[in-house]
Amino acid sequence: ADAAARQAIAARNAVLTKPPGSLGRLEELAAWLGAWQGRATPVLERVRVIVFAGNHGVVARGVSPWPADVTGQMVGNFAAGGAAINQLARVADAQLTVIPLAELAPTADFTEAPAMDEAQFLAAVAAGHASVPPQTDLLCLGEMGIGNTTAAAALAAALFSGDGTQWAGPGAGSDAAGIARKAAAIDAGLARHAAWRGDPLEMARRVGGYELAAILGAVLAARRNRVPVVLDGFVCTAAAAPLARLHPEGLAHAVLSHQSAETAHGVLARHLGLAPLLALEMRLGEASGAALAVPLLRAALACHAGMASFAEAGISARQ
Amino acid sequence: ADAAARQAIAARNAVLTKPPGSLGRLEELAAWLGAWQGRATPVLERVRVIVFAGNHGVVARGVSPWPADVTGQMVGNFAAGGAAINQLARVADAQLTVIPLAELAPTADFTEAPAMDEAQFLAAVAAGHASVPPQTDLLCLGEMGIGNTTAAAALAAALFSGDGTQWAGPGAGSDAAGIARKAAAIDAGLARHAAWRGDPLEMARRVGGYELAAILGAVLAARRNRVPVVLDGFVCTAAAAPLARLHPEGLAHAVLSHQSAETAHGVLARHLGLAPLLALEMRLGEASGAALAVPLLRAALACHAGMASFAEAGISARQ
Repeated sequence: ADAAARQAIAARNAVLTKPPGSLGRLEELAAWLGAWQGRATPVLERVRVIVFAGNHGVVARGVSPWPADVTGQMVGNFAAGGAAINQLARVADAQLTVIPLAELAPTADFTEAPAMDEAQFLAAVAAGHASVPPQTDLLCLGEMGIGNTTAAAALAAALFSGDGTQWAGPGAGSDAAGIARKAAAIDAGLARHAAWRGDPLEMARRVGGYELAAILGAVLAARRNRVPVVLDGFVCTAAAAPLARLHPEGLAHAVLSHQSAETAHGVLARHLGLAPLLALEMRLGEASGAALAVPLLRAALACHAGMASFAEAGISARQ
Repeated sequence: ADAAARQAIAARNAVLTKPPGSLGRLEELAAWLGAWQGRATPVLERVRVIVFAGNHGVVARGVSPWPADVTGQMVGNFAAGGAAINQLARVADAQLTVIPLAELAPTADFTEAPAMDEAQFLAAVAAGHASVPPQTDLLCLGEMGIGNTTAAAALAAALFSGDGTQWAGPGAGSDAAGIARKAAAIDAGLARHAAWRGDPLEMARRVGGYELAAILGAVLAARRNRVPVVLDGFVCTAAAAPLARLHPEGLAHAVLSHQSAETAHGVLARHLGLAPLLALEMRLGEASGAALAVPLLRAALACHAGMASFAEAGISARQ
């Protein structure tokens, strides 16, 4: 990140016509955007939303009330413009791209085998990495995949301790029996892959999923090109979390858009030290929370770029 | 509010391509807007931001680090387009109006006398009432007035119990000694006007201010014309609070945009049963939080109006 840009933004913030600091996190967001973009006047012209889609072998364990076919059907809905993210990307004035991984073939059931072999995992990471154009001002990430809150919960547990009962939640609408099946599947996966629990990337391969691996690759590509990232909900955050386990500053170029209604998301955010910008009890995924945060970032930049200074406005100093 | 419109919105929400309820508060917001607009497909074409400005005699007690001249200087800054709310209203695609009350003459110091006489109070309420065009789809309210967190704190204390120490905060940047002067002024005002503490409107006259009275009038006008209202921070919320003390549903047509960094705002919001949409540590006033919430409402309506149903998208049912 560019310390000079951050400093220039902080210096300007201090002389704009408001009590110092009174725009709160909007001031921090402007500085964060500028630091990663390397611009004292950050811009949001090329805002991209990328949604990765994948299927999960663990769905065979009854972890979702929805059939796996819905993943592909929702990809069709994204293409037709009928999903929430189509509307939210439009409100955000962002370009939406949807990338199905592995032709939507499911991963292996992680209770029985690694979800992906090494070639499959690396191909998904590479697909995510290749999906981010270097000339991007802001990258919003999200996912679609029936069963993927189970994969995310298993990965979060592997990275931060805890068991299935602690990390399983209703996801896309599981009842108590469904949550119990999720917890059991998570515990079975953790037991099967216990020997690798200290290796974040290996656990991402073993209990994650194609769309989670692609998110990880996209977050890496953004870091290389200093593109600021907006994370979405529980699955997206869990997908990126291995990078924070590999390096304490691994997610410094990312903000957390919102806190999901999925209880595990708040727990995971606290482990990662990420403070959500919004908390509107959403639990949809597909980058919906990330896109919803974009207008807040636009507002932060509009204030920073457009406000007058005390001197320009002829306003009296504090007494 | 229009129960039929609310019902129609809830019914449509249940068949859109997402797990039921997964858009969280966005779903509630669409239903709330429709109920007050009386439309099954609510719109946000005529969004208005009105900022009322006034001065305060209690500033003589040293309750603000800023000179009273700043109120008028900031009105000039609003007119020139240099304030935060100018930028935030533009991001919100809202029309901004700024209304100075009483030609910015200060109220009386409420530690010595009622802040306004009855004619002055009613004129300010009437000015606020007259400021709201009936054909408004959404009304965002805010204020500017050096010293007005002291008036807001005195009014909140009068309405909901407590004393100056509990309700005084840093406002626009008071240090500990300044906060102590605020608390002392609030306590002196509460003592002087104690006999009227059970009368919300009388206390709004005695310890409030012109811009607070105008906000109260605007909220009343909005109610008469079924215009949904977005409240801003501590001062704006305190200004509207007498209506909730007069009738339990008095603020049902209003949402709270954000929770301010001013601690008393969270306390007041809990007293009123209002759940903020945002909590970004802002403490600026001038409708900044209210305007910032507008894109969230636009997003709620975009999802509601633009999403496909499960049947339209050919998506499988839950198992």
